[in-house]
Amino acid sequence: MIEFTPLGIIHSPFRKLENMPIQPAGAAGVKGTVQIFDEYRPGLKDLEGFSHIILLYHFHRSQGFNLNVVPFMDSVPRGVFATRAPKRPNPIGLSIVQLDKIEDGVLHISNVDILDGTPLLDIKPYVPEFDVYEEVRTGWLEKKSKTIKGRKSDNRFG
Amino acid sequence: MIEFTPLGIIHSPFRKLENMPIQPAGAAGVKGTVQIFDEYRPGLKDLEGFSHIILLYHFHRSQGFNLNVVPFMDSVPRGVFATRAPKRPNPIGLSIVQLDKIEDGVLHISNVDILDGTPLLDIKPYVPEFDVYEEVRTGWLEKKSKTIKGRKSDNRFG
Repeated sequence: MIEFTPLGIIHSPFRKLENMPIQPAGAAGVKGTVQIFDEYRPGLKDLEGFSHIILLYHFHRSQGFNLNVVPFMDSVPRGVFATRAPKRPNPIGLSIVQLDKIEDGVLHISNVDILDGTPLLDIKPYVPEFDVYEEVRTGWLEKKSKTIKGRKSDNRFG
Repeated sequence: MIEFTPLGIIHSPFRKLENMPIQPAGAAGVKGTVQIFDEYRPGLKDLEGFSHIILLYHFHRSQGFNLNVVPFMDSVPRGVFATRAPKRPNPIGLSIVQLDKIEDGVLHISNVDILDGTPLLDIKPYVPEFDVYEEVRTGWLEKKSKTIKGRKSDNRFG
């Protein structure tokens, strides 16, 4: 087993699993905060220069997992590793959010698709030279991913 | 504490921490494999439709952490969360790699910047609609990130 510890708590307007945006791309303008625990705050130095950051977090409300899931954006079962669904063998979430400012160890963020109270595991700077690939194939999501803006979650992964 | 378990093992040509590429962008053409443990293989269904995947893994050779680090691409200390350095409070690595094929539960991947023997924590499909942001600021990396292709690691994070 590999052990990790929460570095802070993510706050958002979303208090239950239903009716959440699916992915930050569907959460335009939704504001949230990340409260970093005191002991880790020195690690935030220089972060404010980045407009976008990668948050890794614990899907703490996800219980157990299924290796095949019907994703929010589809009607047939898919292998869980071909989806971003929260009920995963290791329930680690990944969201790229906009960083608006940092004040007193609190990150103010936009485009938040994360449940209120979620434990933060890591923050990484988003860097196009590392993270942007344009010429890609996206399998079963090929046509569906463009429809994400209006889609909301239901409680299937609770 | 939050507990995760390895889902497989990543194999690559890199057997020590020195002289590794920094980021997949600096590892063009480097081949590797990910051996998924039997019990998780059904979760790989549909993954082969994606040309690029996000690997999350455990920086298992990283001991302890520093909140301020001198990154490979700089000469002054930066807050660890403003870097992709491996010695992090929760040593979780993230690489976007090219998926060439899947055979018998083994992923064949390209552009691998990961140490041989690294425990895999999660696989997510890479989806431009979720993961690509073009108009971004990248702080201290603003001018340096374009020079990554020729850069190699040293042993500072061993």
